[in-house]
Amino acid sequence: MIIARVVGSAVATVKAGKLSGFKLLIVQEVTANNKPLADRAPFVAVDTVGAGEGELVFVITGSSARYTDVTENVPVDAAIVAIVDSLEVDGETSFRKA
Amino acid sequence: MIIARVVGSAVATVKAGKLSGFKLLIVQEVTANNKPLADRAPFVAVDTVGAGEGELVFVITGSSARYTDVTENVPVDAAIVAIVDSLEVDGETSFRKA
Amino acid sequence: MIIARVVGSAVATVKAGKLSGFKLLIVQEVTANNKPLADRAPFVAVDTVGAGEGELVFVITGSSARYTDVTENVPVDAAIVAIVDSLEVDGETSFRKA
Amino acid sequence: MIIARVVGSAVATVKAGKLSGFKLLIVQEVTANNKPLADRAPFVAVDTVGAGEGELVFVITGSSARYTDVTENVPVDAAIVAIVDSLEVDGETSFRKA
Amino acid sequence: MIIARVVGSAVATVKAGKLSGFKLLIVQEVTANNKPLADRAPFVAVDTVGAGEGELVFVITGSSARYTDVTENVPVDAAIVAIVDSLEVDGETSFRKA
Repeated sequence: MIIARVVGSAVATVKAGKLSGFKLLIVQEVTANNKPLADRAPFVAVDTVGAGEGELVFVITGSSARYTDVTENVPVDAAIVAIVDSLEVDGETSFRKA
Repeated sequence: MIIARVVGSAVATVKAGKLSGFKLLIVQEVTANNKPLADRAPFVAVDTVGAGEGELVFVITGSSARYTDVTENVPVDAAIVAIVDSLEVDGETSFRKA
Repeated sequence: MIIARVVGSAVATVKAGKLSGFKLLIVQEVTANNKPLADRAPFVAVDTVGAGEGELVFVITGSSARYTDVTENVPVDAAIVAIVDSLEVDGETSFRKA
Repeated sequence: MIIARVVGSAVATVKAGKLSGFKLLIVQEVTANNKPLADRAPFVAVDTVGAGEGELVFVITGSSARYTDVTENVPVDAAIVAIVDSLEVDGETSFRKA
Repeated sequence: MIIARVVGSAVATVKAGKLSGFKLLIVQEVTANNKPLADRAPFVAVDTVGAGEGELVFVITGSSARYTDVTENVPVDAAIVAIVDSLEVDGETSFRKA
């Protein structure tokens, strides 16, 4: 799972039918210290947990994005599956949700 | 899902039988501001939503490309599944369809 | 699908049984102008369309490589599924088969 | 499988239901000499073998992360499936667990 | 399929049950001339063909690694499926097994 921050959202009226009703969020991969990774472009993930802009989230990519309770057989390759409360790296808290 | 711009199209007469009838478009990954990502090469995606050249689209890659209503079991690893109306990043509209 | 050029071939006598009979070609990812991408290493794809050395082809990767008529359940992660006749980018023909 | 070191852990209360009960560890890809790869960002993997911080592990990514005895159909794209005892490269022991 | 050289091996006592009995080899991606690709880290693949250290092999990654005769439903994302006899690039033999 990628550690990412929700940085925005997308609107698309014309889309695959099975995508209807999903919130499409723009996410940016970050370090465990919540710093954006300069060489990773933002991408779009479907939200399955009610994530909001600015929150740190875990994004799963690939076929597993179709294995949440709400995305079965949906043509998605990235899904937000968790909102991060805190991260600990090398014994230090690197991130804690405000 | 990758944010990409449709930059062209491809013609291939000799191809896997199950690819017959699909429009093969050349797409270029872009930023949320519609700037091409220099380090990403254009690639080919099947169109499932009637996208046209110059439009911003969302492309799904991997096995999920086989999960639209029209690509089931088709040997494709990239499919255009949405035409972007607008993108919002950090509270600002970064892209709006003309 | 990756735009690639067939640059060679491989011989491997000892291999997974289900790979028997497949032509294993070496392909190099290229731009839509048929220029090799320096940072992409050549890799091996099974041929499903009778592609020949020097031809531009489309290669699908990942699980979809098992979804052509001839590769069902075969342990392959890259398959040539089309021979490119022509590519058009930004309204110009960027490649046409000789 | 990626050679990685467990560098931390994550807490996420709001998450996909099927992720409940899994230990979410932060891992960093390393060389066979246990040196972190500077250009790889840490990511999150579910632990399936009782790995602890500081240990070298093997991480599988993609759909195969759903094929351990405990992750069947769980929306995960990275799973720790082994704790490394030792690695040998070019005839030398490059890593041995303390 | 990736062209790789077997550069070592791994020992892991604690591992997913379904991995028992598999030989875990460390492989390094190489060019068609058997030169290591500096920007690719060594990784671990299960051996399905009796490959030995120093040999050039083809490695399949992703879900297809579960489609050899011996890895069905095994949590692996990389499998050695062939031992390379020879490679030909641009009409020249770039590699021949000693």
